[in-house]
Amino acid sequence: MNYGVIFYVLGWIMKSEAVFLMFPFVVGLIYREDTAWSYLITAALCLVLGVLMSLKSPKKGGLYLKEGYFVVALGWIIMSLLGAIPFYITGEIPAYIDALFETISGFTTTGASILNDVEKLSHASLFWRSFLHLLGGMGVFVFLSGLLPMLGGNSVNLMKAESTGPSVDKLVPRIKDTVKILYSIYLGMGTLEVIILLICGMNLFESLTLTFGTIGTGGFGLLNSSIGSYSPAVQWTIGIFMLLSGMNYALYFLLLKRRFKQAFAMEEIRLYLVITAVSVALIVVNLGHLYPTMGETIRQTFFQVSSLITSTGYATTDFDRWPEFSRTILIVVMIIGACAGSTGGGIKMSRLLILFKAARKQIQIFIHPRAVKKIKMDNNVVDHDAVRATNAYISIFFAVMFSSVLIVSMDGHDFTTNFTAVLATLNNMGPGFNMVGPTCNYSFFSGISKIVLIFDMLAGRLELFPMLLLITPSSWRRYL
Amino acid sequence: MNYGVIFYVLGWIMKSEAVFLMFPFVVGLIYREDTAWSYLITAALCLVLGVLMSLKSPKKGGLYLKEGYFVVALGWIIMSLLGAIPFYITGEIPAYIDALFETISGFTTTGASILNDVEKLSHASLFWRSFLHLLGGMGVFVFLSGLLPMLGGNSVNLMKAESTGPSVDKLVPRIKDTVKILYSIYLGMGTLEVIILLICGMNLFESLTLTFGTIGTGGFGLLNSSIGSYSPAVQWTIGIFMLLSGMNYALYFLLLKRRFKQAFAMEEIRLYLVITAVSVALIVVNLGHLYPTMGETIRQTFFQVSSLITSTGYATTDFDRWPEFSRTILIVVMIIGACAGSTGGGIKMSRLLILFKAARKQIQIFIHPRAVKKIKMDNNVVDHDAVRATNAYISIFFAVMFSSVLIVSMDGHDFTTNFTAVLATLNNMGPGFNMVGPTCNYSFFSGISKIVLIFDMLAGRLELFPMLLLITPSSWRRYL
Repeated sequence: MNYGVIFYVLGWIMKSEAVFLMFPFVVGLIYREDTAWSYLITAALCLVLGVLMSLKSPKKGGLYLKEGYFVVALGWIIMSLLGAIPFYITGEIPAYIDALFETISGFTTTGASILNDVEKLSHASLFWRSFLHLLGGMGVFVFLSGLLPMLGGNSVNLMKAESTGPSVDKLVPRIKDTVKILYSIYLGMGTLEVIILLICGMNLFESLTLTFGTIGTGGFGLLNSSIGSYSPAVQWTIGIFMLLSGMNYALYFLLLKRRFKQAFAMEEIRLYLVITAVSVALIVVNLGHLYPTMGETIRQTFFQVSSLITSTGYATTDFDRWPEFSRTILIVVMIIGACAGSTGGGIKMSRLLILFKAARKQIQIFIHPRAVKKIKMDNNVVDHDAVRATNAYISIFFAVMFSSVLIVSMDGHDFTTNFTAVLATLNNMGPGFNMVGPTCNYSFFSGISKIVLIFDMLAGRLELFPMLLLITPSSWRRYL
Repeated sequence: MNYGVIFYVLGWIMKSEAVFLMFPFVVGLIYREDTAWSYLITAALCLVLGVLMSLKSPKKGGLYLKEGYFVVALGWIIMSLLGAIPFYITGEIPAYIDALFETISGFTTTGASILNDVEKLSHASLFWRSFLHLLGGMGVFVFLSGLLPMLGGNSVNLMKAESTGPSVDKLVPRIKDTVKILYSIYLGMGTLEVIILLICGMNLFESLTLTFGTIGTGGFGLLNSSIGSYSPAVQWTIGIFMLLSGMNYALYFLLLKRRFKQAFAMEEIRLYLVITAVSVALIVVNLGHLYPTMGETIRQTFFQVSSLITSTGYATTDFDRWPEFSRTILIVVMIIGACAGSTGGGIKMSRLLILFKAARKQIQIFIHPRAVKKIKMDNNVVDHDAVRATNAYISIFFAVMFSSVLIVSMDGHDFTTNFTAVLATLNNMGPGFNMVGPTCNYSFFSGISKIVLIFDMLAGRLELFPMLLLITPSSWRRYL
């Protein structure tokens, strides 16, 4: 392995984190909070470590796919370990494992909290929590890969490890331009949301933090009632922006390029919208007269479906109390997840399409044994490797899921709690059902369970392979 | 499609069922029960229909794979529709949908019951219920494909549709000989169990019915307490024979041929035994002092694990009351299932091996991108088609599972009940957890849910594809 490059990139990651930590520091200064200094101290630590590690520019550039996966997995862990420090030294989260859980939950855009009372946090810490969603949503390495020219074309390997979906394509030939386009869409969408929320009467602090949680599909809020106590206008705004954040960013690129025909033909987006619409319709019928008006029923349903299909995890109502049919629809939607190439989690629409098409092909082979069928998506043939990787992904997904449920079950809580807690962390969702429902939190789990759930959050955000590579002995053996 | 052959084979199936129905008739006569005559009447009906349908010998033989799948799926449905009649006309099961549920549950070796009080049934009906396990366990078409010479070599397509596992091999070149060997092992194992149970002090009726439930991995018993009230010797006997019935029959063939080295090297059997042993060990530790003695703890644990991994569904204790960790192990074991080429259900050990090896290969591709790796099992290369079929199987399995859970959830019961009810029917298990736990039954489900669960039992027993082919419009369109 090219240790020079790995150290160098990790050094840059720490230097970046030093910069990121200045944001909550400034927020803390504005609100005259003592907690602010914890952020400055941590920033200084990151800077020193970062400068030391990236002192020596690597002799040769280049970064293979495997090294890209390694460095991204390690980088996420290091950033989280450092990023958890302020929560711990301010004393706002007394146990370091809990601070780490909260940080990784923010960074992976999960939004699962161990806090019993969010409202007690300082503004600096509330801001940091939500800011982590913004950083983790699009990806820090994606950002970095546009900045570090020395990696050359290989920086796409960093992007591949951090982006969502079965195959990652550059939108334009140059990686630097692709990163610029992605971040422009991301921040552009965020700016639009902030403006609308300001118009709705929110202050800047609220608008910013909730926007970070929305466009990063994170889910950390400012109130114990999540989004429930805000006005309908705010709820509709956040609901719609969550749905937009769950779409493949290639859609926005095509729209900006005025390639409308191609944009509207995207199968993944169509499936995403159909599943959302059908789920909303079924739940609205199932809920009946649970809410006073039809308008409120539709708003509540749309918000919850949009929140869970995109793996955001905001809530405007306690959906754990909905009838079982509606709850089951939400669980199915949680498993499926958002589109590839979005900031959302889950198995992803495009994987679902590939699996569905592969299964259909298998049935067709029985009917017409001699027919030669190719799996196509958006009229392009899906290559054999993508199908194989998707199949492996699904197997590993369920293996990780059931292994995690098994370990977590040692705590002795009920099956629904364990199953949905694992699902909610592995899919970077946030809330689940029963003891981890939208009005609850994850503080009651044992240390071992928390470590398992932390692993699941990282494995889910980085789409399994980078984390698995990190814990596969044979991937180290040859090089150590 | 070759309608001549399809009609002819279905006719033979009905004639066979007429013969099978004579067994409960004779049992009823011995016990001087009026219900016996219902079996004779139904047998007569089957005979008339069967003779009419197989009057005309088909002009040309031959049966393609697709037709094999069709005829097996149709055949199972017809046999079940007819086989349910006696339960209904004796009045022992007042609703026909319930009689059908019970029949299909028996025939698919599921063992899920809608009866609140099994002990009220007549001997004839108790015998028929269990006899269905014997018929369904190894498969009626497998039996038939050894009898109908006119199908020639193509009768292997009947066997493929009815046997378990990702790939079905003939043990010996001639299909007729393969069938003879399989049925010899099956009935030989049954005879051995009957003899041991007789030695344990059971009467012939009890020994026969419980043996049918064991070697067919069915699970219907004679008492409301399942196997709980029998002696430890009986429980050990049934526990061990369940485990033996979940093994790939190729093992016994190799043992009979004295190819010991090859037999002991079978990866599937090894994995099966390791998973069983680890599960038993973990549960024994987890249960602690729940039972008075260590011996009883081991017996109870071994029996339940053996029963659930083979998808039999017999119980000696209410495992629904075990601690959550043990319950979760049982759920995982329920999903995995027994070996391919056995009478057991579930995803199957060999599929698990293929999935695991495919996932490992995918990770290795990251580590050594240039290495060419083949997936091997028992030192043979697993061909690409088997891997692809396995992947499609898993996708379809989870799709059917979650669709079923969704429909069943409309009844409004809790998630654990719905999830494990679907799992228990789709894997031909029998009992699940909560409201479908080992001390409960399936009578409370609505008609729609019962139809879904009936579909799941058939889909599970025939390993998805035959049933899916039957409900795929395009497989009919071209031929009707």
